Amino acid sequence: MNDLLIYCIPAFGVIALIFTFMKSSWVSKQDPGTPKMVGIAESIQEGAMSFLRAEYKVLAIFVACIAVLLVFGGLKSEDSSPLAAVSFVVGAFCSALAGYIGMKVATKANVRTTNAARESLGKGLGVAFAGGSVMGMGVVGLGVLGLGGLFAIFSNTFGHDERGIAQVMNIIAGFSFGASSIALFARVGGGIYTKAADVGADLVGKVEAGIPEDDPRNPGVIADNVGDNVGDVAGMGADLFESYVGSIIATMVLGAAFINMPEFANTNGMGAVMLPLLLAGLGIIASIIGTFFVRVKDGGSPHRALNTGELVAAAILLIGTFVLCKVMLPDSWTSIGGVAITPLKVFGAVIAGLVAGLGIGFITEHYTGTGTGPVKSIVRQSVTGSATNIIAGLGVGMISTAFPIIVLSGAILCAYEWAGLYGIAIAAVGMLSNTGIQLAVDAYGPISDNAGGIAEMSELPAEVRQRTDKLDAVGNTTAAIGKGFAIGSAALTALALFAAFKTTYEGAHAGEVLTIELTDPKVVAALLVGGMLPFLFSALSMQAVGRAAMAMIEEVRRQFRDIPALKAGLHAMNRNPGKPLAEWDEEDRATYEDAHGKAEYGECVEISTKASIKEMVRPGLLAVAAPVAVGFIGGPAMLGGLLAGVTVTGVLMALFQSNAGGAWDNAKKMIEEGFEVNGETLGKGSEAHKAAVVGDTVGDPFKDTSGPSLNILLKLMSVVALVIAPMI
Amino acid sequence: MNDLLIYCIPAFGVIALIFTFMKSSWVSKQDPGTPKMVGIAESIQEGAMSFLRAEYKVLAIFVACIAVLLVFGGLKSEDSSPLAAVSFVVGAFCSALAGYIGMKVATKANVRTTNAARESLGKGLGVAFAGGSVMGMGVVGLGVLGLGGLFAIFSNTFGHDERGIAQVMNIIAGFSFGASSIALFARVGGGIYTKAADVGADLVGKVEAGIPEDDPRNPGVIADNVGDNVGDVAGMGADLFESYVGSIIATMVLGAAFINMPEFANTNGMGAVMLPLLLAGLGIIASIIGTFFVRVKDGGSPHRALNTGELVAAAILLIGTFVLCKVMLPDSWTSIGGVAITPLKVFGAVIAGLVAGLGIGFITEHYTGTGTGPVKSIVRQSVTGSATNIIAGLGVGMISTAFPIIVLSGAILCAYEWAGLYGIAIAAVGMLSNTGIQLAVDAYGPISDNAGGIAEMSELPAEVRQRTDKLDAVGNTTAAIGKGFAIGSAALTALALFAAFKTTYEGAHAGEVLTIELTDPKVVAALLVGGMLPFLFSALSMQAVGRAAMAMIEEVRRQFRDIPALKAGLHAMNRNPGKPLAEWDEEDRATYEDAHGKAEYGECVEISTKASIKEMVRPGLLAVAAPVAVGFIGGPAMLGGLLAGVTVTGVLMALFQSNAGGAWDNAKKMIEEGFEVNGETLGKGSEAHKAAVVGDTVGDPFKDTSGPSLNILLKLMSVVALVIAPMI
Repeated sequence: MNDLLIYCIPAFGVIALIFTFMKSSWVSKQDPGTPKMVGIAESIQEGAMSFLRAEYKVLAIFVACIAVLLVFGGLKSEDSSPLAAVSFVVGAFCSALAGYIGMKVATKANVRTTNAARESLGKGLGVAFAGGSVMGMGVVGLGVLGLGGLFAIFSNTFGHDERGIAQVMNIIAGFSFGASSIALFARVGGGIYTKAADVGADLVGKVEAGIPEDDPRNPGVIADNVGDNVGDVAGMGADLFESYVGSIIATMVLGAAFINMPEFANTNGMGAVMLPLLLAGLGIIASIIGTFFVRVKDGGSPHRALNTGELVAAAILLIGTFVLCKVMLPDSWTSIGGVAITPLKVFGAVIAGLVAGLGIGFITEHYTGTGTGPVKSIVRQSVTGSATNIIAGLGVGMISTAFPIIVLSGAILCAYEWAGLYGIAIAAVGMLSNTGIQLAVDAYGPISDNAGGIAEMSELPAEVRQRTDKLDAVGNTTAAIGKGFAIGSAALTALALFAAFKTTYEGAHAGEVLTIELTDPKVVAALLVGGMLPFLFSALSMQAVGRAAMAMIEEVRRQFRDIPALKAGLHAMNRNPGKPLAEWDEEDRATYEDAHGKAEYGECVEISTKASIKEMVRPGLLAVAAPVAVGFIGGPAMLGGLLAGVTVTGVLMALFQSNAGGAWDNAKKMIEEGFEVNGETLGKGSEAHKAAVVGDTVGDPFKDTSGPSLNILLKLMSVVALVIAPMI
Repeated sequence: MNDLLIYCIPAFGVIALIFTFMKSSWVSKQDPGTPKMVGIAESIQEGAMSFLRAEYKVLAIFVACIAVLLVFGGLKSEDSSPLAAVSFVVGAFCSALAGYIGMKVATKANVRTTNAARESLGKGLGVAFAGGSVMGMGVVGLGVLGLGGLFAIFSNTFGHDERGIAQVMNIIAGFSFGASSIALFARVGGGIYTKAADVGADLVGKVEAGIPEDDPRNPGVIADNVGDNVGDVAGMGADLFESYVGSIIATMVLGAAFINMPEFANTNGMGAVMLPLLLAGLGIIASIIGTFFVRVKDGGSPHRALNTGELVAAAILLIGTFVLCKVMLPDSWTSIGGVAITPLKVFGAVIAGLVAGLGIGFITEHYTGTGTGPVKSIVRQSVTGSATNIIAGLGVGMISTAFPIIVLSGAILCAYEWAGLYGIAIAAVGMLSNTGIQLAVDAYGPISDNAGGIAEMSELPAEVRQRTDKLDAVGNTTAAIGKGFAIGSAALTALALFAAFKTTYEGAHAGEVLTIELTDPKVVAALLVGGMLPFLFSALSMQAVGRAAMAMIEEVRRQFRDIPALKAGLHAMNRNPGKPLAEWDEEDRATYEDAHGKAEYGECVEISTKASIKEMVRPGLLAVAAPVAVGFIGGPAMLGGLLAGVTVTGVLMALFQSNAGGAWDNAKKMIEEGFEVNGETLGKGSEAHKAAVVGDTVGDPFKDTSGPSLNILLKLMSVVALVIAPMI
C-alpha cells in the first residue's frame, strides 16, 4: 500500500496543475475589451514579464553558484549528498515557474476583470478570482508535484529504512532552499520594485505635476501597476510557496524519527513522513472544491463570496484531516521526549495551526481594518498633525504584536503538548494546507486593483470604476489578513525547520546531542546578533527603496522635460487649474489629449527593475551569509541561537511594520471617506488628510517591502541552517 | 584581613557621601542672582519636589505591598528569607534618597549656573558640573553604603561559609529589587511627565499661541523645566543606580560559587565575592579625583574639560583594578564549566566591559551627533518632506542597532572566554564602576539646559544665553553617549542577573540543574512572549504620553482663556504680529509685560504629575507581573526564556528608539543652524525645517520615554526572577 501512496502524491500536484491550466485557458478566452484597454494591459504585462526575465537572469547565476557550492559541500561528509543540489535547482525552478504562470495570468486577468465589470460585479469577481486561483493552485500544484516527485524518486533509490530516509531528507531539504532563494528575490526585489515605482510615480506625477492617480500621462503609471503584480502576486506567491514546502519538509524530517517504531509497522514506518504530503494533497482537493463556491450576484457582497469559498475548503480539510490521521498513524505511540501521541492529538495539533492562522488573520484585521478602534485612533490623532499621526501609527503597530504572539505561543504550546516537536511542524502544515484557496484570495486583490487602474486609464464610465473599487476594497481587507497569515506561517515554518535542523544535525553527528542552552553566553551572544538582523535587514531594504525611488523620480522628471507632447500637455493643464476638461479651450484640450500615451513607460519599468535587483543584493547576501558564517565558525549551538534570535525579532518586526503600514493606509482611507472627528467632517484636502498622507507614505515601505521581506529572512536562514547541518 | 575589608566597604560609601555633602553645600553657597531669577528657580524647584513627593507617596504604598509579599514569599521555603523584604526596603530607600538629594541640588544648581555664566563660561561649567556630581556621587555613595552595609550586617549574622553566604545573597538580592522599583517609577513616570509637559507647553504655547520657547507667559513653561530634572536627572540617576547595584549583586552571587575552593583560602573564600564591592569603592575614589580635572577657562572647550575628568578617572580605575585583581584573586583556578581563570583574565573581562561601554557610547554619538553622516542623511531627506524625514530616521534608528550589538556580543564572548559567567558579571561591574563621574556628566546636561531656560525667562543679556547654550550643546552630546551607555549597562546587568538567577535557583533546589533549552518549544514560546513585551511596553508608554499631554494641553488652553492678564497679553501680541517689542505701542507693551508671571504654573505641574503617575501603573504592573506569572505557572525554564526574549528585543528596541530620537533631534538642529543641501541653505521656517520638526516630535517620546523605559523593563524583570528564584 505504501509504495503506491508515494506515487499518488505527485498525482495530486498534477490534478492541481490541470485545474490551473483550465482556469488559465478560461481567463485567456475572456474578452479583454476595447483596443485602448488591450494596449494598456499589454504594457503592464510586458513590464511585469520583463521584470521577471531580468530577475530570473540574475537568479539563474545565483542558483548556479549555490548549486556548485552544494555539490562541494555535499561531497564533504558522508551524511550530506551532492544530490541536494538537484533538489535545490528543482525547488528554485518550481517556485520560479509558479511565479511566472501566476504573473502571466494575473496580467491577463486584470483587463478582463475590468471588461467583465462593465457587465456586472459578479462577472468581475469571477474573472479576478479565476486569475488569482491560477497563482494559488499553481503554487500548491508545483509544490506538491516537485516535492512529491523528488521524494518518490529518491526514496526509491535510497530505500525506506531509517538510514535511507535520512539521506533522502537531507537531499530534499535542498528543495526548500531553492524555494527560499526565489522567495528572497521575489519578495525583497519585488518589494523594492513596487514601492520605488509607487513613490516615484506619485511624487512626481501627483505631487509635482499635479496629474491624477493612474493617469496615462504619467510615465511611471505602468511601472506602478506592474509593481502591484510583482509585489503582491509573485512576491506573495513565492513567500507562501516557501512556507508551504518548508513546513512539509520539516514535518517529514521530524516524522522520520518514528520509522523504526513497531507501532508504525502498518505503514512500513512511513505514516508520519507521508502525513504532511497527504494533507497537502487533501488541501488541493479542498481548495479546488472551495473555488466553486466563490460567486456573487450584482448587489451581493464579494467579501462573503470569498469567505464562503474559504469556509467550505476549511470544512472539507477538517474532516479529511481527521480521517487521514486515523488511517496513517497508529493508535498511540511515544515520541522522543516521552510525549504519548495519538492520532486525535495530532489532529488537535493541525487544528491548533489552522486556528492560529485564522486567529492572527482576524487580529490583523482588527488592528488595520477600516473603521476599527485602532485605526480610528490614528484618524483622531491625524487632526493634530503628521507627528501625532506617526506616533499613533507606530503605537498601533507595536501594540498589535501582542495578541498574535500570544496566539502563536498558545498554538506552539498546545501542539507540543499534544504531539511533541512533530506536533509543531504538523501545525504549520495545518496552517498552510489551504494555501491553494488562501493564495487565490490574496492574488485576487492586486488583480482587482489593476482592473481599477485600467478602468481609469481607459476612461471607462464611472460605474465600472465603482464596481472595480468595490472589488478592490475587499482585496484590501483580504490583503491585510493574508499578510498576517503569511507572517504567522513563516514563524511556525521557521520553528519547524529549526526543530528539523536539530534532528538532522544529531542524525549526521551520530550520538551527539545538540544542546542550545540559553545559559551558555555564546548562545546568548548569537541570540543578540540574530535578533539584530531583522532591524538591519529592514533598514537596508527601506534605504534601498529610497534609492530606487530616487532613480525613478529622475526618470519621470526627465520625461516630463524631454518629451514634447508630455511637456505641452502639462502646460495645457497648468493653464486650466482646477477646471473640468470640458471647460478648457479647444486647443488646450487637444494638446492635453494628445499627450495621452506619449510617455515612455518601458524606460520607467526598466529603471525600476534594474534598481530593485541591484538593491536586493546586499540584504540578500546578509541573509545567506550570516547563518553560514556563524554555523561554520561558531558551531551548531551558536547557529541555533542566531536562528532563535532572528525568528523572535523577525516575527515581531514583521507584525509591527505590516500592521502599522496597514493601519496608516486605512486611516487615510477613512479620512478620505469623510469620517467625523469632534463634529468636523474630514475629507480630501483637510489638514488631517495631509497628515494621514504622510503616515501612509511612511507605511508603504513598512508594509510592502521591509515587513514582508522579514518572512523570507527568517525562513531562509532556517533553511540554510537545515541544509548545512550535516556539513558543520 | 577579610572581616576588616568587609567593614571597609561601607566606608567608601561614606567618603562619597561626604564629598556629596561638600559639593552640595558649595553649590548652595553660590549666588542665585536677581530676585526674578530666584523666583523662577523657586518655581522649578517647588515643581520638581512636588513631583517627587507625589511619586514617593505612591511608591511608599507600592513598596509596602511588595515588602509584605516578600515576607510571605520568604517564609514559604527555607532557602528564601523574609529578611529580603528588609533589603528591598533599604534598596528602595537608598535609591529614593539619592534621587531626592540629586534633584534638590540640581534645581539649586540651575539658577546658580545661570548667574555664574553672567561672569564667565568657566564659572558656569563649574557650578553645573558640581550640581551634577552631587547626583553622581550620591548614587554611588548610597549604593555602596547600602549594599556594603547590608552585606556586612547579614554576613556577620549568617556566617561566611557557603550556606551562609548563599542565604545572604538571597537576602540582599532584595536591595536590587528595591532599586529597580524606584527606577521604574522614576524612569517611566518621569519619562511620561517630561514629554507630556514638553509637548503640552510647545503645542499650545509655541504653535497655537505663537509665543517663544521658555516664555514666562506660557503656563506650561515651569512644568517643562521641571520635566528636564525629573526625566534626565532623577530618571537617569535611578536607572544607573539600578544597573550599578544589580551588576554588583549578580557578580557577588556568581563569585560565591568559588567559596569552597582551596585556591581561595587566602581570602577565606571571599575574594571573588568582595571584588565587585572593592571595584565599586575604587570607582568612587577615581571619580572623586576625576572631578578635580573638570575645569575650563573662557574660550576653552567644556567638552574637553568633561572628557579630561572622565579619562583621569578611567586611568586610575584601570591601574587600581589590575592591583585589586592580583590581590583578591588566587593565581589561577578552574571555574564551573571548566574555564581556567587567572587574575589577568578577570582584569581582561573588566576591560572588555569598560571598552564595550565606551564603544557603545561612541557609536551612539556617530549615529545621533550633529554633523555625522547618518544625521546628515536625515537632513537631506527632510528636503522632500516629513514622510521621507520619518523614513530616514526610522532607518537610522534600525541600522544603529547593528554595531552596538556586535560590540556587546564581542564583550560577552571575551568575558566568558576569559572568566566564565563570573567574567560576564564582572564586565558589567567594569562598565559601571565609573558611574560616579559618568552620571555627574549626564546630570550636568539638564542643569545647563535649565540654566538656559532661566536666562531666557529672566531676560538676561544675550551673551549669558550664549554661554549657557554652549554648555547645553555639550550636554546634548553627553546625553546621547550617556543613553547608549545606560542601554549597554542595562543589557550586561540583565545578563549578569540572568546568570545569577540560574545559580540561585540551582542553589535553592539542591541537585537540580536548570536547563533552558532553545529546542524546548516551551522555552521558545516564552522567548516569543518575552520578545513581545518591549513592543507592548513601548506602545503603552507612548500612548500614556499622548494622554498625559492631552490633559496638559487642556489646562494650558484653559489658562489662556480664563486668566484675564494672560488673555490680554496674548491679544496685545496678536495686534503686533512679527514686530519687535520695542516697536509696539505703549499700551500693548504694558499689557504684554503685565502678563509676565501671571500664569498658574503650579496647576500645570500638578496635572502633569498626576497624569504621569496614573499612566505608569499599567506598564509598571506588566513589568512586575509578567515574570511572576510565568515563573510560578510555567516554571523556571519558561521564565528563563521570557527573560532572554525581553533582554534581546528590549536592548534592540531601546537602541532603535533612543538613537532614532537623537538623530531626528540633531537633524532639526543642523537645519536650524543653516546646513546646505544642493546649494540651498536651510534654516528655521524652511520646508525642510517643518519636516524636521515633525521628526523631532515623533522622536521625543522615543528617546525620552519609551526607549529609556526599556532599560528598566529588562533589569526589573531579571531582578524579579532572581528574587523569586528560591520560591518557584
